[in-house]
Amino acid sequence: MDWFQKIITISDSKRGFLLITNHIKDQLLEVSNFKIGMLHLFIKHTSASLTINENADPTVRQDLETHFNQSVPEDANYYKHTFEGSDDMPAHIKSTTIGNSLIIPITKGSLNLGTWQGIYLCEHRNHPHTRNIVATINGIKF
Amino acid sequence: MDWFQKIITISDSKRGFLLITNHIKDQLLEVSNFKIGMLHLFIKHTSASLTINENADPTVRQDLETHFNQSVPEDANYYKHTFEGSDDMPAHIKSTTIGNSLIIPITKGSLNLGTWQGIYLCEHRNHPHTRNIVATINGIKF
Amino acid sequence: MDWFQKIITISDSKRGFLLITNHIKDQLLEVSNFKIGMLHLFIKHTSASLTINENADPTVRQDLETHFNQSVPEDANYYKHTFEGSDDMPAHIKSTTIGNSLIIPITKGSLNLGTWQGIYLCEHRNHPHTRNIVATINGIKF
Repeated sequence: MDWFQKIITISDSKRGFLLITNHIKDQLLEVSNFKIGMLHLFIKHTSASLTINENADPTVRQDLETHFNQSVPEDANYYKHTFEGSDDMPAHIKSTTIGNSLIIPITKGSLNLGTWQGIYLCEHRNHPHTRNIVATINGIKF
Repeated sequence: MDWFQKIITISDSKRGFLLITNHIKDQLLEVSNFKIGMLHLFIKHTSASLTINENADPTVRQDLETHFNQSVPEDANYYKHTFEGSDDMPAHIKSTTIGNSLIIPITKGSLNLGTWQGIYLCEHRNHPHTRNIVATINGIKF
Repeated sequence: MDWFQKIITISDSKRGFLLITNHIKDQLLEVSNFKIGMLHLFIKHTSASLTINENADPTVRQDLETHFNQSVPEDANYYKHTFEGSDDMPAHIKSTTIGNSLIIPITKGSLNLGTWQGIYLCEHRNHPHTRNIVATINGIKF
């Protein structure tokens, strides 16, 4: 049984839904040591989020961005939290709707994702940010 | 301390919110060996999701289906990802909104669900699918 | 390696998004014993939820309440589950949208939250309720 933890940094994340599966895998070569386990990814911010969705067609990511912009409007007349700009309160709402953490099972040394599943960073602010993700692995090694 | 992992298959899942608590429990008799632990359920698909909600009145499940059909429309004029049919892009959006995994605490050999809580498979495609769920248990045995 | 589990009770939770970070920390002094680990919080109800969002400006919490009231209307003409009142079916929908559990990494004896992150209880019913949260810690001690 073993634990492993590190911070993974995404520099200059741009607004939108960004496929980060390969970046996460490259930063977590330790996954290959685990026979069974779980990887927990936790983004330490309140205006970005993490999700899992289709890893193939980039229009899925564009449509997700458009959908959440439609369903969480900027400058709604009932917002009180407005002093950080039009994109700020929508970013908080999207973060709570989508969620700030993921758990992915580890099986025989690999992330046990479905064929079409990829890991997304969802950046909800206009200006690029540096985003920190705490990665925690827990499992039994080979 | 111990780990257990298996794939649970739901055959022919039909569109809608489906109560699968008993199916999950029947497939995971190993839960009864754990004094304290966590069960992680992870659906390996991007157009279905998992949630926990009321286990009694079936109209809760019907209303959830209707609500998400209202709030995530088919054939929105801004969708670009349309070649797999009208139900495809909404399925991806619902999957990201609802989420693809659950963690349920284990206490004294049982899932520590509230009285009214049941596990739902949310099938967002029109055609029945076979859905695979990775179940991972981690805890201390009696 | 060690496990710890207890029930944390929130008495008289009032409708809205309530910051409970300090209450959770005060009830979980055991976190300080863990070098690396995870805290799982699981609310045992289907009309309340848990999320992480900004811990500073209270208008973020007010705007979240207003947004979800706009996007999940009361008395929608398609609701069938109506016998427990106008706030009941919207509460179930919000619970599935926001989610009923959180996982927070533990690092060097503390919850590894970002500077601006706080833990929220989201109470979706009008009448105050007593809400039970199962807290499960798993990790390696110092």
